[in-house]
Amino acid sequence: MNLGRVIGTVWASQKHDGFAGLKMQLIQPLSGDGTRAGGTRVACDSVGAGPGELVFTVDQYEATLAFPALKNVPIDCAIVGIVDELNDQSAEVLASDDRGGAGL
Amino acid sequence: MNLGRVIGTVWASQKHDGFAGLKMQLIQPLSGDGTRAGGTRVACDSVGAGPGELVFTVDQYEATLAFPALKNVPIDCAIVGIVDELNDQSAEVLASDDRGGAGL
Amino acid sequence: MNLGRVIGTVWASQKHDGFAGLKMQLIQPLSGDGTRAGGTRVACDSVGAGPGELVFTVDQYEATLAFPALKNVPIDCAIVGIVDELNDQSAEVLASDDRGGAGL
Amino acid sequence: MNLGRVIGTVWASQKHDGFAGLKMQLIQPLSGDGTRAGGTRVACDSVGAGPGELVFTVDQYEATLAFPALKNVPIDCAIVGIVDELNDQSAEVLASDDRGGAGL
Amino acid sequence: MNLGRVIGTVWASQKHDGFAGLKMQLIQPLSGDGTRAGGTRVACDSVGAGPGELVFTVDQYEATLAFPALKNVPIDCAIVGIVDELNDQSAEVLASDDRGGAGL
Repeated sequence: MNLGRVIGTVWASQKHDGFAGLKMQLIQPLSGDGTRAGGTRVACDSVGAGPGELVFTVDQYEATLAFPALKNVPIDCAIVGIVDELNDQSAEVLASDDRGGAGL
Repeated sequence: MNLGRVIGTVWASQKHDGFAGLKMQLIQPLSGDGTRAGGTRVACDSVGAGPGELVFTVDQYEATLAFPALKNVPIDCAIVGIVDELNDQSAEVLASDDRGGAGL
Repeated sequence: MNLGRVIGTVWASQKHDGFAGLKMQLIQPLSGDGTRAGGTRVACDSVGAGPGELVFTVDQYEATLAFPALKNVPIDCAIVGIVDELNDQSAEVLASDDRGGAGL
Repeated sequence: MNLGRVIGTVWASQKHDGFAGLKMQLIQPLSGDGTRAGGTRVACDSVGAGPGELVFTVDQYEATLAFPALKNVPIDCAIVGIVDELNDQSAEVLASDDRGGAGL
Repeated sequence: MNLGRVIGTVWASQKHDGFAGLKMQLIQPLSGDGTRAGGTRVACDSVGAGPGELVFTVDQYEATLAFPALKNVPIDCAIVGIVDELNDQSAEVLASDDRGGAGL
């Protein structure tokens, strides 16, 4: 899954019928340390996440599993959880890796 | 899904038979703030989008769901909606993340 | 789908049996304006494309749909069309997006 | 599969029901020489990996195969092994490639 | 498929049972001209490739097709061929594209 911040909303009236009633949120993918990890994605929301919240999303076929009532809807990104707490220890844990060698 | 702008059209006479009658548009993937997010994609259009319009696309298997009448056509990108309105709040929402830490 | 230029050929005698008889071409993915869009891919050719031609390719499962006679062959990239004409209007269409904001 | 280091943990109470009881770890993808290879991923753990350990993960549909008891859970990244030993010879092996030409 | 060089080996005793007996090789993805194309991947070997060899790999579901005897094993990258000969003409073929415009 990818971490991301809800940064906005997308509205569309001309769209595949299957999107009717779904909320489409703009997501900025993030790394654990808050740096941006790739371009904005548009995700269908299955958990009621609002702007500013830190969430995790799934891509492609697995995204459709978040909407079991829908059949054959072309969704390839879904919000499936809202993060309560995040423990990022990358600064400590990766210090030696960055000097070369993924050592164990 | 990915946001993108329709920036052109592709014509091909020598192609897989399944593409017959489909319109193939050139798409520039974009982030919500208008910056380019990766290289151009070629997408089959299912909603009648024209050059200059802001759309959202789906990739891989889910793209084929936009063309239910087609069977076994090798499509991996489809335009599935035209954006009416886009509310991008990335500037405000991400200000603190960018200083380090995806904090909640 | 991705635009790409056929830039060479790959020969392999030690390979999965399913590749027997298939032509494997080296593809440089391109954007509509001719800039390179990612690293070289190896694609099985289903349309008779030769070196120097501009083509479009599909990835992953959809690539196998280009070879319906083959069963369970591990192909994840296929050439499915040769481009006759390409109308790239990115320079005009994206001018305002690049100044910030994907505006409509 | 991707190499990665477990760099933290994610907690979420508001999430798809299928995630109940699964541990979600933050993963920093790495190359064999220890350099970071892309942004942080959130992976469900199937092997009991803890912070600081070097693991390998799988993405998309294959990730769900690591949890055979679960049905229709939107998981797209799973930790499926802990690395005991890693023999990275990239420095020697790639020396000539980097001077141009993937020569054999 | 992706070109890549075998640059090492990965050993893991704590892993999904399905990996038993499979050899996991470290792969550096390459472009046809020998430049590195993305971070290291871990691939299961189906053709007996050794360190230093130039191979091609497949990703995701198609990777599992290289191991037909295995059922429900979370493999998402497999070596499926060893390159005998590579004809990369990118220098000549792409010269004009790089000056702008994917022209035909």
